[in-house]
Amino acid sequence: MYRLELTKRAVKVGLPPGTLIHVGEKKLAEPEIWLILYNETTVEEIKVSKIENDLKLEEGRNIWVHVAGVHDSQIISQIGEIFKLHPLILEDIMNTGQRPKIEEMGEYIFLVLRYLDYDEVTKEIISEQIALLLGPNYVISFEESLTPVFHPVKERLRQGKGRLRYSGPDYLAYALIDAIVDRYFIVLEKLGERIEIIEEELVERPEKETLNEIHRLKNATLNLRRSVWPLREVISWLGRTGSPLIKEVTAVFLRDVYDHTVQVIDTTETFRDILSGMLDIYLSSLSHRMNEVIKVLTIIATIFIPITFIAGVYGMNFEYMPELKWRWGYFGSLFIMLICALSMIYYFRRKKWL
Amino acid sequence: MYRLELTKRAVKVGLPPGTLIHVGEKKLAEPEIWLILYNETTVEEIKVSKIENDLKLEEGRNIWVHVAGVHDSQIISQIGEIFKLHPLILEDIMNTGQRPKIEEMGEYIFLVLRYLDYDEVTKEIISEQIALLLGPNYVISFEESLTPVFHPVKERLRQGKGRLRYSGPDYLAYALIDAIVDRYFIVLEKLGERIEIIEEELVERPEKETLNEIHRLKNATLNLRRSVWPLREVISWLGRTGSPLIKEVTAVFLRDVYDHTVQVIDTTETFRDILSGMLDIYLSSLSHRMNEVIKVLTIIATIFIPITFIAGVYGMNFEYMPELKWRWGYFGSLFIMLICALSMIYYFRRKKWL
Amino acid sequence: MYRLELTKRAVKVGLPPGTLIHVGEKKLAEPEIWLILYNETTVEEIKVSKIENDLKLEEGRNIWVHVAGVHDSQIISQIGEIFKLHPLILEDIMNTGQRPKIEEMGEYIFLVLRYLDYDEVTKEIISEQIALLLGPNYVISFEESLTPVFHPVKERLRQGKGRLRYSGPDYLAYALIDAIVDRYFIVLEKLGERIEIIEEELVERPEKETLNEIHRLKNATLNLRRSVWPLREVISWLGRTGSPLIKEVTAVFLRDVYDHTVQVIDTTETFRDILSGMLDIYLSSLSHRMNEVIKVLTIIATIFIPITFIAGVYGMNFEYMPELKWRWGYFGSLFIMLICALSMIYYFRRKKWL
Amino acid sequence: MYRLELTKRAVKVGLPPGTLIHVGEKKLAEPEIWLILYNETTVEEIKVSKIENDLKLEEGRNIWVHVAGVHDSQIISQIGEIFKLHPLILEDIMNTGQRPKIEEMGEYIFLVLRYLDYDEVTKEIISEQIALLLGPNYVISFEESLTPVFHPVKERLRQGKGRLRYSGPDYLAYALIDAIVDRYFIVLEKLGERIEIIEEELVERPEKETLNEIHRLKNATLNLRRSVWPLREVISWLGRTGSPLIKEVTAVFLRDVYDHTVQVIDTTETFRDILSGMLDIYLSSLSHRMNEVIKVLTIIATIFIPITFIAGVYGMNFEYMPELKWRWGYFGSLFIMLICALSMIYYFRRKKWL
Amino acid sequence: MYRLELTKRAVKVGLPPGTLIHVGEKKLAEPEIWLILYNETTVEEIKVSKIENDLKLEEGRNIWVHVAGVHDSQIISQIGEIFKLHPLILEDIMNTGQRPKIEEMGEYIFLVLRYLDYDEVTKEIISEQIALLLGPNYVISFEESLTPVFHPVKERLRQGKGRLRYSGPDYLAYALIDAIVDRYFIVLEKLGERIEIIEEELVERPEKETLNEIHRLKNATLNLRRSVWPLREVISWLGRTGSPLIKEVTAVFLRDVYDHTVQVIDTTETFRDILSGMLDIYLSSLSHRMNEVIKVLTIIATIFIPITFIAGVYGMNFEYMPELKWRWGYFGSLFIMLICALSMIYYFRRKKWL
Repeated sequence: MYRLELTKRAVKVGLPPGTLIHVGEKKLAEPEIWLILYNETTVEEIKVSKIENDLKLEEGRNIWVHVAGVHDSQIISQIGEIFKLHPLILEDIMNTGQRPKIEEMGEYIFLVLRYLDYDEVTKEIISEQIALLLGPNYVISFEESLTPVFHPVKERLRQGKGRLRYSGPDYLAYALIDAIVDRYFIVLEKLGERIEIIEEELVERPEKETLNEIHRLKNATLNLRRSVWPLREVISWLGRTGSPLIKEVTAVFLRDVYDHTVQVIDTTETFRDILSGMLDIYLSSLSHRMNEVIKVLTIIATIFIPITFIAGVYGMNFEYMPELKWRWGYFGSLFIMLICALSMIYYFRRKKWL
Repeated sequence: MYRLELTKRAVKVGLPPGTLIHVGEKKLAEPEIWLILYNETTVEEIKVSKIENDLKLEEGRNIWVHVAGVHDSQIISQIGEIFKLHPLILEDIMNTGQRPKIEEMGEYIFLVLRYLDYDEVTKEIISEQIALLLGPNYVISFEESLTPVFHPVKERLRQGKGRLRYSGPDYLAYALIDAIVDRYFIVLEKLGERIEIIEEELVERPEKETLNEIHRLKNATLNLRRSVWPLREVISWLGRTGSPLIKEVTAVFLRDVYDHTVQVIDTTETFRDILSGMLDIYLSSLSHRMNEVIKVLTIIATIFIPITFIAGVYGMNFEYMPELKWRWGYFGSLFIMLICALSMIYYFRRKKWL
Repeated sequence: MYRLELTKRAVKVGLPPGTLIHVGEKKLAEPEIWLILYNETTVEEIKVSKIENDLKLEEGRNIWVHVAGVHDSQIISQIGEIFKLHPLILEDIMNTGQRPKIEEMGEYIFLVLRYLDYDEVTKEIISEQIALLLGPNYVISFEESLTPVFHPVKERLRQGKGRLRYSGPDYLAYALIDAIVDRYFIVLEKLGERIEIIEEELVERPEKETLNEIHRLKNATLNLRRSVWPLREVISWLGRTGSPLIKEVTAVFLRDVYDHTVQVIDTTETFRDILSGMLDIYLSSLSHRMNEVIKVLTIIATIFIPITFIAGVYGMNFEYMPELKWRWGYFGSLFIMLICALSMIYYFRRKKWL
Repeated sequence: MYRLELTKRAVKVGLPPGTLIHVGEKKLAEPEIWLILYNETTVEEIKVSKIENDLKLEEGRNIWVHVAGVHDSQIISQIGEIFKLHPLILEDIMNTGQRPKIEEMGEYIFLVLRYLDYDEVTKEIISEQIALLLGPNYVISFEESLTPVFHPVKERLRQGKGRLRYSGPDYLAYALIDAIVDRYFIVLEKLGERIEIIEEELVERPEKETLNEIHRLKNATLNLRRSVWPLREVISWLGRTGSPLIKEVTAVFLRDVYDHTVQVIDTTETFRDILSGMLDIYLSSLSHRMNEVIKVLTIIATIFIPITFIAGVYGMNFEYMPELKWRWGYFGSLFIMLICALSMIYYFRRKKWL
Repeated sequence: MYRLELTKRAVKVGLPPGTLIHVGEKKLAEPEIWLILYNETTVEEIKVSKIENDLKLEEGRNIWVHVAGVHDSQIISQIGEIFKLHPLILEDIMNTGQRPKIEEMGEYIFLVLRYLDYDEVTKEIISEQIALLLGPNYVISFEESLTPVFHPVKERLRQGKGRLRYSGPDYLAYALIDAIVDRYFIVLEKLGERIEIIEEELVERPEKETLNEIHRLKNATLNLRRSVWPLREVISWLGRTGSPLIKEVTAVFLRDVYDHTVQVIDTTETFRDILSGMLDIYLSSLSHRMNEVIKVLTIIATIFIPITFIAGVYGMNFEYMPELKWRWGYFGSLFIMLICALSMIYYFRRKKWL
């Protein structure tokens, strides 16, 4: 769970800042690394197992380095050396479980984002950290496991469709952020479906399980929220920063992805409101049912208790009980019981309990 | 439902930004397009099935292009070419289910607004997207289906009443926004009527259905809210922007429509407060009724259980039971039962249960 | 009710802005108009049935025009012509049910305020709109019906007490605003009295009616709130505006009335908190009573059910039941029942139910 | 109660601003006035019954005028004349029940503060208004009754300890504010004790009285809050104002008292949170107890109802009932009843109700 | 408890500001003092029992003075003399139980921070005050008892690892703050574990104890919150202050520790949300169980009450009861009872109660 990842940071207590220790669950056996070198006309894609020190950062070609798996401190520190990254940035990359943030480091911009997925089996949000580095001619992306989130971008880069190839690394960074935000819509759609299913269950037959699922969904929206609210700030800041790394033409695209995050927040808040409303309905339908059960008990008891008493009276063994000898005593007593029961039923009718 | 539209965006995941795909429900079989060319003295109204590339944007005449139905990417992209619109703007037009927003694009201003209606059958808010483009001598409006929202404006333009004809396109844009906000008052009025009806039901006879309707109304106010809050910002921004597209004389009208949105927000928040209060009343009246039911049960049971016990005692078959032989045993036992019952009734009276 | 007035605006849907139609309930058969011309030495008071076009705005005399009843569009438009008011301002005057606001129009300042009263019969807040226009040498006030709110100001003007006569129209406007805010203290006092009465009822004997009154009071504080919060902003703005219409010496008085509105807000919020607390007490006292009722039922049932069973056993008609023949069988069985009952009572005592 | 004082302002409705009428409860029969003239070397303390017009404001001596009892408009207006105070300031002094505020009047600074005490008998917060005037060489303080709040300051002034004597009147004003804020800690301590006592009661034996006390304490924290939040702003403003009346060296002390108010706010909010939590515990323990009561009823009823039925069957008087003649019929029936009862008990055990 | 410490300040009421009295619990018998003098090449560590007036503040060496135990006013005032500290700062050091704050005093910066620990026995947060003074070549730290929080920093200083030795005292101050914030992650981890355990208990078997623990954890998160929110402001302010005491190179590290506090806040808020959700689940599961208990009672009662009545009827002793003489009367009556019971069971089945 997300919150466990957050608290995992406790293993680093006492170590000097900048110490490279992986904080979080190890999700891949071996890190995978891709290098994609591209310009307007060419794309070269290389899969390597380790970064070479003599990484060719040629003139006129942008490079996208993608690292899946951040538990290997050697790879991270090597990248740090090549691209001259601050030790705290390297620490942040390995310290998964952070909230989205942005650091402007002069020569490069560092972004922490979160990849989200909805696990339909455990009905929980899966949350992984994605770190992005945007430099003058490079983009470096780090993810914890092999998620499909950047596949469409890679595909578009390969095929040369859209403006991806002839725009700079800032546009690539935008495209990656956009891909991450797009995932959120998928998560929202899945949550929306679950909410709709539960809404129907709630009307038909509220179970204790329904309540648990409402709470699980509420926790899921909480997780979503905690990823998207800071993300909104990050993107807003990215759009407004005067850094030369972000070209003016990309800013309008960043504003677009900003609108998307606002939309995600908006829908998330709506989901929260709907789920709160569902909780209210659930609790009041519990009360309703208890009311009904008690009403049945009351009606049965109230009708039969008095007439059982009458039967009890004539079951007494006193020697002198004149009614017992009457010719119509038995039927008379039955008749009285009937009157009693009917008057009770009439009373309940008038009270609209029946 | 609105939230489903919001999550429908998931179909676009992985596509490059600017791809023209209609996101949302297709609400019209064929798009309808009107062109209205007007100046202070003349009005010309043309209904076309497709936009011609050689659309006459004459000097001295303003044009209002109205497109109902935004699922046809060909029409949208053709308009984009004629008026030189940014691809992201075109994408936004086709991507229904967005929240109100404003984009100042230099040569034109782009607005996303929402048309709302209250469906009295399903008791839900119907929400459609309306996109507005305000250029130096044109206004382009897009709606999802054939709503009546702009009819009064068109009528006023035809009849030349008011300042619509001799004011610029900024005043026309204002008139369209005003028409949209006016619809909200109709929605509010309908919601207000429903609330009043339910308020009476609540006092007379709270049913489970009442609770569901309270929640449906609460969701409706939620929807309303989510359309109006960002709208307020949009209009405020529109009034304050220094864009030459908005003349000074129109600003005072924008401030007026701003006041209307504030009034809509105010009423919406009041409705929410009232509905929350109704929920409290509903729940406590449930408790009240349960109390009453249990009280009836308790009174009946408490009166009859002890005297049934007495009857049971004298129904025992012991050979040596002296009371059974007494001359007044039977009537004595009845008298004791009466005393028991009366003392119970007295007790309840004192406790103010009866 | 206030909210109905708010939604009444729906009748204007589709009309061009600036159309003079009265929105709201017509509260007076005929509008009444007073003109009060005053300077440091003289006061002239004229009651007219319609405004003459040649209204004497003499040099050296300030004029206060007071119009009660705003449903007659002719009177309003005539005033508009004489004082050269913007059509939207005239529309706002006739459009009752607006929230407090301020419009600085250059030559004059326009204020919408709300008169409040607490109707002790319906136990609801009565809310009417008051519009104020402050010009260089005039004040125009509009109210919906004949309220007593401005009587003290008129009286002071007649008697020439205080600084009213020799201060400008800005001080008169301040005096009117102050008179309106003073009314709020009366409303607060009445609400405070009701709250205290209900607080006592709540402790002694909570009824369903109590709950309804708590909710009516809560709605009343809601109404109050919605009038006072925007009023605070209006007055704050009025004090800070650099308009030459407001003299420096009046600003300190405006700050004073600002403090009063803050005090009204403060008390209103306290009332809301107290009413929320009362709701909690009410609900928990409902639970308490249900607890008590169920306890009585349980005690009675638990004592008598087992001993009734014993009586039932010895009421069986088996031929071979040795106890029935015992000399002390009957008294023994009674003794056992007594023991049963006493041990139950002991058990309840130990549980502190008795 | 505080809120009553607030609403008492209603008596002034209709009077011109600046009218000196005492608003609030008269808490002293006769006002008491002290004059303390001091400089670095001398202290002179005079108790007078009325202020003389020829009040000696000598060069080189600071004066502290302290007035206990603000209902005598003559004294207040005389002070106003001597120190040339604005009529609205005088009105504010007599108008008790205001929230803390600050008015910078050029030649002097006016402060409204609140003295708080916790009445252990009525368990309510006592709140009185304290007004302070800080001039170039004087401090005037007004209180409603004879509270002990300024005694320590007077004592320190007499003894010449600390920097009080050789600092200016701004330091004296600071010392008075500090003395007021110090009182809040005493109130907090008393509230904290009550909360701890109730917390224990809640665990051991929740009574209806407990609920009432929780609410009384909640209202007390509300009162505290409403005095301290505006106070924080007042002190913050006092520290930041560039007024020559506040020397730079005093600013650091004001920042210290500011920290104390923040601490009071912090503790107050914590108390509120704790009290809310206690309310939740109280309500859920009510539910718990009801659960338990119903469980006892259910167990007893469920065990005995079936076996009473069996006894009832064999109490029937049919002529042909073979069991009645069986040798072991009676004991057999008793055995069946035992089985019934035991199986019920087993069922409850399995359900963990026993 | 924390709140008691806060209110302990009441002992100082009436004393002049700057009086050195220890406010809080005395947690150490004797204060312990370490002096650590270090530069890039050497480290000297001295443990003293009292500070000498001739404390060697040599050129070229930084000094870290650490004082554990702040109840001895002599030591504090001596340090105050040596380092020329403002009396209010000394008072703050001895006044434990303050919230985190920062004071920029020109020649030095004063920080109040809080050390937190989670006591697994009492299940409460332990909170102690830590005061830091950052001067041009010294850092002075004060803690209430001997906590392990600064041990890792001391160890790193001794071993000369990292940049601690050759960076200035501002880096040392950062390292101490970082060490404090790191402790919060440990507290969060322990809270997270407790929450997980309770979450499981809640699903399996909710007890009254569970509720109490939820509330204790809620109070713990409240405490955490109140320490971390102001800490965030403190660190943010420290990073932005233009004080020459903080070098530019340290600012990036402060931003890092700022991110950590944000993360702590984030997790704390999540814990609060989760605990609130758990409370809801707890309460609704209480309702659920009550429902179930009442259902069992109702089913048993409703099945047996009617048939017991039938048995009662045939137990009556009327002389003329024809059924009693019928050959199959007994079995017939049993058969009718069976039908009754079965129809009731069928009814419950249809209602889905069984």
